[in-house]
Amino acid sequence: MFIDKLINDIIKKDNPTVIGLDPKLEYIPKFLLEKMFSEYGPTMSGAAQAILKFNIGIIDETFDMVPCIKPQSAYYEMYGHDGVEVLANTIEYAKSRGMMIILDGKRNDIGSTADAYATAYLGETFIRDSISQRAFLADALTVNGYIGIDGIEPFLKHCNQGEKEKGIFVLVKTSNPSSGQLQDLCMENGETVYEIMANLVNEWGGDNIGEYGYTNIGAVVGATFPEQAEQVRNIISKSYILVPGYGAQGGTADGAAKSFNKDGLGAIVNASRSIMCAYKDSKWKDKFRPEEFGKAARAEAMRMKDELNSAISKRQ
Amino acid sequence: MFIDKLINDIIKKDNPTVIGLDPKLEYIPKFLLEKMFSEYGPTMSGAAQAILKFNIGIIDETFDMVPCIKPQSAYYEMYGHDGVEVLANTIEYAKSRGMMIILDGKRNDIGSTADAYATAYLGETFIRDSISQRAFLADALTVNGYIGIDGIEPFLKHCNQGEKEKGIFVLVKTSNPSSGQLQDLCMENGETVYEIMANLVNEWGGDNIGEYGYTNIGAVVGATFPEQAEQVRNIISKSYILVPGYGAQGGTADGAAKSFNKDGLGAIVNASRSIMCAYKDSKWKDKFRPEEFGKAARAEAMRMKDELNSAISKRQ
Repeated sequence: MFIDKLINDIIKKDNPTVIGLDPKLEYIPKFLLEKMFSEYGPTMSGAAQAILKFNIGIIDETFDMVPCIKPQSAYYEMYGHDGVEVLANTIEYAKSRGMMIILDGKRNDIGSTADAYATAYLGETFIRDSISQRAFLADALTVNGYIGIDGIEPFLKHCNQGEKEKGIFVLVKTSNPSSGQLQDLCMENGETVYEIMANLVNEWGGDNIGEYGYTNIGAVVGATFPEQAEQVRNIISKSYILVPGYGAQGGTADGAAKSFNKDGLGAIVNASRSIMCAYKDSKWKDKFRPEEFGKAARAEAMRMKDELNSAISKRQ
Repeated sequence: MFIDKLINDIIKKDNPTVIGLDPKLEYIPKFLLEKMFSEYGPTMSGAAQAILKFNIGIIDETFDMVPCIKPQSAYYEMYGHDGVEVLANTIEYAKSRGMMIILDGKRNDIGSTADAYATAYLGETFIRDSISQRAFLADALTVNGYIGIDGIEPFLKHCNQGEKEKGIFVLVKTSNPSSGQLQDLCMENGETVYEIMANLVNEWGGDNIGEYGYTNIGAVVGATFPEQAEQVRNIISKSYILVPGYGAQGGTADGAAKSFNKDGLGAIVNASRSIMCAYKDSKWKDKFRPEEFGKAARAEAMRMKDELNSAISKRQ
């Protein structure tokens, strides 16, 4: 079951964090960018190959201590099919290093089309006769639930049936400043839209509960709104919360800790820029050269792990 | 301006419809599928090439009478980077035939990531120095507004600034049976979520109004909910409505006509399966062989155009 495997890895590595691989070109050390442009030309393909090498450098230095990566699809789609190929390559490489993959695509559509997205990211694409192939090796996908249950059901098939080896994280309360514009709207009965979405997450998980008491249906709740996070935490006690917004977006470890349950489980916290750009950060740039961007990422990932574990233990 | 160009093309072709290119393999005539599999092998690449040939066959027979195509990204992502390359090729080919392109991706994310999606589908990707490239040649993109304004602003840049040559269509009321689960929820003040989203569409369009009185910020409202469509129509009188759900999903021409304004403008109606699979439909299969799938698509597109124009004129 997806969530049991994720929790096992979190416990084994004593690290409830995920590295967001959102590789803007400006994050990539100049030497690496120039090297790939000179090899592949100043093209989409050159940019995509620089991203791949950068991702591999970070994965190589963190795979033994971080359970999971979260590539953000947009930063690969920007480079067209070359970028999407590198997204698939990054996923495959992280997988080969024993990391799990949450693909951040926030996909959503009506039933038949949601089924195509579920096939692309969680299932197998049928080609002919007995031949099927996996387009991407993701373990879980972020989804947007505005469409309602029949846009979610095709994903649930992969989460709640058979081997239950896949997961989804449904947007509940996002980390951006204006997330309240829709999500905080208050219904006649006093409930907010994000509370209703949280209740749907519960419903969609149903009684498909793994050995640690959690379902494969998680939620996205930003670290930037700790009060709402605590409230959502109480509604969806059986769901894992994916927490974006820690670090560069202004969310603190104490804020992120509010998404955890008293069992010390229940959430996984994402950091992207702070880890990918650690080699440029004032904390680390005197210790590591740009060529050591992977080692700087590891140092920052270690620091984040310790800070977060300490904040979580205060809550227990 | 995007919307003026779209309306000009609709008027010129006297046809407010868009062909949804959602190419499931089962839609593709067997002879074509087998041909491409024997050429490229029973692989992702073979499937993707069959899709491209199928799309080209439909575009070749309809470009002179249909203003626009709407490829649904999920059906290309299913085939990994091969599929995404064929999505780009399809867009490029339709463009070369003078059709406009609404890419149906329902993308959404927080500001910085939405900016990457906007760059991918509406803008240009920066590579190095003065070198930028367009990943996809779309004219407009469907987006999901659950995130709120700072997830929409990066798209608005391309719609409301400079040449204003791009558009977005924001999900307001989707065509699926359970769309009401979130979208019909009623606020304390009596407004529904979809009405609030419609008002945001108005706000996001602002006073960036083209020569026909419309903005580049449109809405998606399913043909399957004609009552709500009429209500949304009244809220967003300056926005174009993209109407899915006509034909195979059960929406009628009269239902779709409710999304039009009294000026006979204001909406564009999508049909996918009914046009792509026309060669298999009882209406057409005696007249056309599978090899003539393009001509069958044209016949159905003609029929749809006439039916729709007659329903619209009844409303004027």
